[in-house]
Amino acid sequence: MALKSFIEVGPDSHFPIQNLPFGIFKPEPTSPPRPGVAIGDYVLDLSTISVSGLFEADEAKLRDNPNLREKSLVPMSKVEMLLPIAIGDYTDFFSSMHHARNCGIMFRGPENAINPNWFQLPIAYHGRSSSIVVSGTDIIRPRGQGHPSGNSPPYFGPSRKLDFELEMAAVVGPGNELGKPVDVNEAGDHIFGLVLMNDWSARDIQAWEYVPLGPFLGKSFGTTISPWIVTLDALEPFACDAPKQDPQPLPYLAEKISKNYDISLEVQIKPAGQEDSCVVTRSNFNHLYWTVTQQLAHHTINGCNLRPGDLLGTGTISGPEPESYGCLLELTWNGQKSLSLNGTTRKFLEDGDEVVFSGCSKGDGYKVGFGTCSGKILPSP
Amino acid sequence: MALKSFIEVGPDSHFPIQNLPFGIFKPEPTSPPRPGVAIGDYVLDLSTISVSGLFEADEAKLRDNPNLREKSLVPMSKVEMLLPIAIGDYTDFFSSMHHARNCGIMFRGPENAINPNWFQLPIAYHGRSSSIVVSGTDIIRPRGQGHPSGNSPPYFGPSRKLDFELEMAAVVGPGNELGKPVDVNEAGDHIFGLVLMNDWSARDIQAWEYVPLGPFLGKSFGTTISPWIVTLDALEPFACDAPKQDPQPLPYLAEKISKNYDISLEVQIKPAGQEDSCVVTRSNFNHLYWTVTQQLAHHTINGCNLRPGDLLGTGTISGPEPESYGCLLELTWNGQKSLSLNGTTRKFLEDGDEVVFSGCSKGDGYKVGFGTCSGKILPSP
Repeated sequence: MALKSFIEVGPDSHFPIQNLPFGIFKPEPTSPPRPGVAIGDYVLDLSTISVSGLFEADEAKLRDNPNLREKSLVPMSKVEMLLPIAIGDYTDFFSSMHHARNCGIMFRGPENAINPNWFQLPIAYHGRSSSIVVSGTDIIRPRGQGHPSGNSPPYFGPSRKLDFELEMAAVVGPGNELGKPVDVNEAGDHIFGLVLMNDWSARDIQAWEYVPLGPFLGKSFGTTISPWIVTLDALEPFACDAPKQDPQPLPYLAEKISKNYDISLEVQIKPAGQEDSCVVTRSNFNHLYWTVTQQLAHHTINGCNLRPGDLLGTGTISGPEPESYGCLLELTWNGQKSLSLNGTTRKFLEDGDEVVFSGCSKGDGYKVGFGTCSGKILPSP
Repeated sequence: MALKSFIEVGPDSHFPIQNLPFGIFKPEPTSPPRPGVAIGDYVLDLSTISVSGLFEADEAKLRDNPNLREKSLVPMSKVEMLLPIAIGDYTDFFSSMHHARNCGIMFRGPENAINPNWFQLPIAYHGRSSSIVVSGTDIIRPRGQGHPSGNSPPYFGPSRKLDFELEMAAVVGPGNELGKPVDVNEAGDHIFGLVLMNDWSARDIQAWEYVPLGPFLGKSFGTTISPWIVTLDALEPFACDAPKQDPQPLPYLAEKISKNYDISLEVQIKPAGQEDSCVVTRSNFNHLYWTVTQQLAHHTINGCNLRPGDLLGTGTISGPEPESYGCLLELTWNGQKSLSLNGTTRKFLEDGDEVVFSGCSKGDGYKVGFGTCSGKILPSP
């Protein structure tokens, strides 16, 4: 029988006692931020717990003290969630083969869809830390340059190809010293946990700017993460084999145990003024070709230092079937076809669209989930 | 006649009263870090000045108080300099046309040397903040993957093509709010000042990893900056016209006054065990095609927020002549020829090499300089 908490938790909750994810919240708009743990529909205020000496006590002390329960368990619906970490550096990988192949076919043709380096190392780029926001923050449509084709001059204005990217991200726990790489078999010890991440992308800006130094303004206007960090411990029951890698990775990337996690992911879009949102894709974390531990080991092999709170995005997580593609670029094949959305259609995101990611692993009678990661598009100023 | 300080400053000093750059230092190894201003061979301890109420007083109070002078003016040779800022995000541009053309010819051939987007916008990539170090910090040769050619498998090991890149960087002063771009004509107000920067690069790692998402581990093992931030005010007497841009930039990049600065830059290499260092290149900040204000305005046009202390690198500053190329990749044409170095030669950097950048503007009887930006290569572990 599954472990149970003395707090009532429904079977569909993302936050049973098997999860206990960490976040930063304000119980009231004027309260100072503090750490908390999600449990059912409540947030356990760790600052109250700490002051009351409960880190030294057992379960009964909180359970049997109505006053303390009242003070330390805040209804989740009443709190404001903040970014769970101070992010020093943010790195985004490119680790779904299906995503890499689809983008490659669209932009370079089927013969050269995936560059040979992709199978030898987890390709990544440095992202922008300053514009990472917590779920629920509005996203302003970016302006920038795009380029229609051939020798025509670039245009300037609000992005015409605004997209989401379904990703997850690892939060670094203990860092490493500059010049001291992390062994791939110890990389898991440097990961605090995972969050959902929407790497909003302006495809027209990105396509025009990215040669030869990679994505820049097409990404840096905003990146949304979910507020609760789910630990690798909580995800351990959902560990599964990572895909077989061919060619075999070089020794510094060869893991004794190569793990993915079975985490179902879903994206919904809710157009402005509509009651209902519409599922546009269903994917799974286990579609990643390179594991998060390989990503972390690769990141440090040159001596680069990671710091607590650094974020390592997985890249868009697309599965093999069209219904599991992780962004509109792939779902509409760069706007060549329309996506049907409860009586309306989309090629790319429109102003007022709200995009909601959710993710969870399904256990026997309980779920270990991430809650949601959402954002609404506001028009360019 | 030039303004003079009551502190003796030689005509070759980089830090006369016309400069007064800001840095962070420790007077003794165990002292807490504090802000300082360089003047001649001294560092003025701003924490002492502040405690003594001197921000409210005139020059005489410090000049005529030997005790206070003794306490607040620390010989520069005795202090330890630290990073002058906490760097949230670091961005590196690619704004010298000569550098862009040389790299393009080497990697893509003379017909496609410069991609058409280069002339329409200041190309840039996000860099790694965590591994930025202050001048004088050793740099450990990174390990990583390289790829000889064709279908051969990648190799792994210490980089075989370790290089410096002669750059400068703008330090952001006041930032901007997410979603609120900075007007190009007000961009100067957001720049605190400039520093020298060595964007160490492992060319073999970079060449193999950079398609399609840009440089990553080829750069993130270390970036060195000089400790003194020279304000744009101090550089104003050395302002000069930026090059004419053709095609004309889009309106958001069109400046009423488009300025560069006449700053002479020099790189010396001192091999291990040798007494003397050898000048390997002489360049100038005024070779930049895109100005730092255009870089900053472009960076924010999509709404991206800059924060105080963010660093905007210029990219390698190469001039038109081979003697002014800003990195070994260009100077040795990717190792095809050797650079002569006081009786020895170099294609790329060897262990024990110390690379020293210096930069200054020459006024009438005085200099406004940056001091040096140096680092020595240690072998891979």
